[in-house]
Amino acid sequence: MANDALIAALKATNVAVERVLDPILAVPEGYEAQVVQAMRYSVLGGGKRLRPLLVLASGELFDVERSHALRAAAAIECVHCYSLIHDDLPAMDDDDMRRGQPTTHKAFDEATAILAGDALLTLAFEILSHPSTHPDPNVRLELITALTKASGHHGMVGGQMIDLTAHDHDLDENAIYRMQQMKTGDLIAFSVEAGAILGHASKDARQSLHGYARDLGLAFQIADDLLDVEGDVEDVGKATGKDQNAGKATLVSLMGLERARQQAQMLSDQAIEHLQAFDTRADLLRGIVHFAVNRTH
Amino acid sequence: MANDALIAALKATNVAVERVLDPILAVPEGYEAQVVQAMRYSVLGGGKRLRPLLVLASGELFDVERSHALRAAAAIECVHCYSLIHDDLPAMDDDDMRRGQPTTHKAFDEATAILAGDALLTLAFEILSHPSTHPDPNVRLELITALTKASGHHGMVGGQMIDLTAHDHDLDENAIYRMQQMKTGDLIAFSVEAGAILGHASKDARQSLHGYARDLGLAFQIADDLLDVEGDVEDVGKATGKDQNAGKATLVSLMGLERARQQAQMLSDQAIEHLQAFDTRADLLRGIVHFAVNRTH
Repeated sequence: MANDALIAALKATNVAVERVLDPILAVPEGYEAQVVQAMRYSVLGGGKRLRPLLVLASGELFDVERSHALRAAAAIECVHCYSLIHDDLPAMDDDDMRRGQPTTHKAFDEATAILAGDALLTLAFEILSHPSTHPDPNVRLELITALTKASGHHGMVGGQMIDLTAHDHDLDENAIYRMQQMKTGDLIAFSVEAGAILGHASKDARQSLHGYARDLGLAFQIADDLLDVEGDVEDVGKATGKDQNAGKATLVSLMGLERARQQAQMLSDQAIEHLQAFDTRADLLRGIVHFAVNRTH
Repeated sequence: MANDALIAALKATNVAVERVLDPILAVPEGYEAQVVQAMRYSVLGGGKRLRPLLVLASGELFDVERSHALRAAAAIECVHCYSLIHDDLPAMDDDDMRRGQPTTHKAFDEATAILAGDALLTLAFEILSHPSTHPDPNVRLELITALTKASGHHGMVGGQMIDLTAHDHDLDENAIYRMQQMKTGDLIAFSVEAGAILGHASKDARQSLHGYARDLGLAFQIADDLLDVEGDVEDVGKATGKDQNAGKATLVSLMGLERARQQAQMLSDQAIEHLQAFDTRADLLRGIVHFAVNRTH
């Protein structure tokens, strides 16, 4: 799949996900309006929509109804945006800009940002538990359980804790892989898995997709770290060079630029190999790998 | 039910809930251990366990298996403790002490406290989605949906947003009732409702319990505000006089001490009236009302 087609698919996904979230996030009349406005600011404010597209692309392999995949995608985007809001806070990574816009605590205030993150995380489970996500209660529960594991202390939150606690000299290559798998890889893997859960995919298909998602997530993270070192602040939309300045452990700082680039390439080749059992319907998943590794923002 | 018996019931509930949570919160070996230690510090660190007791007491009316009620109770306590951690943060209520101990961000640091809150909220849904909470998937989903509504931007988070945004002269009596219903009442109501959901209670029974929980929650909140004005800092275990100093809107500041005391009494009488359809098995719920209104901490 050409990069142009993929960018078009991401844009279409953005429109579709926002159409799901917009009415759910109707602004109430009372003073609580402010937290809903902050939620909208974060979750309707653009972003690549890579995770939602992964849900749709994986769902297509198993003929998942698009409205179901879009609700799962919306829930995942709520979790992703909550994690960005909280990670950007002064007590965490202390970032002022995100996607070329002020971060949520800059646009509102810290208290509102903390609450907006909390409410987005809660909303994700509200969306998944509703029958419009899937008529089969066991499917909804499987989505919920898998999301808690990907995003809680065994997954994303645990990964962020490691990233904040460990200094660069504390982590070897394997430990960094593990941290990044938890911090960003697990939610990416869940995005791919969600399509399989919604489509009652076979165990074999799930295993292939799991391998795909794991390699994609790591390649994506290395590409992110490379952008942090090499990227232009205007393209990237947030401060660059931050990890290095903070003495943070990344695979790029450990391997050097050249080996990191090779590693990203190797992981993306591997990711695509995991898809060999699928026909052309997996082309979107294949295209996502190229996009994730070669993007400039 | 005598107050001594109720205090014994709360203590037994504490032991039982901690027995559920302790193995779930086993400390891992990696650097992510710190967030789990902070979660344990908050959720295994005592507290009244009023909400868990409400789940057990309501569950007893419908012969709910104790192990099921305890898991729902543990999930609610995770949500309650997450809200305390986040509310205590410097950007929110900026409290240093809670239950006579340093607050989580004081005992650890702000980043760890934010993450521990996030992970406890996530864990609540992990616990509810697991089959050991109830074999019927629809019961588990109903618990999850009701918890999201009680704790998200329509409920607890929205109430905290109002509390932070509105100044005392902005809210009249009805607006304060609404804020407190969202901020603390909705989770108390869900605690009572959880027993009814687990026990497939009739619509009538649910409606009675809903009225009970609503009046109890408001009486509880007025008692809390009275403690803030009248309480001894050592008994209460946290700073007192804070609401007044912060110019916060409470029913006590609006009504004055005497009318607030009368109001709390009226609400607790009403709460007990809602239980008239239940026999002596509801004595625990009746005892909780007396305890909530007459406590000194």
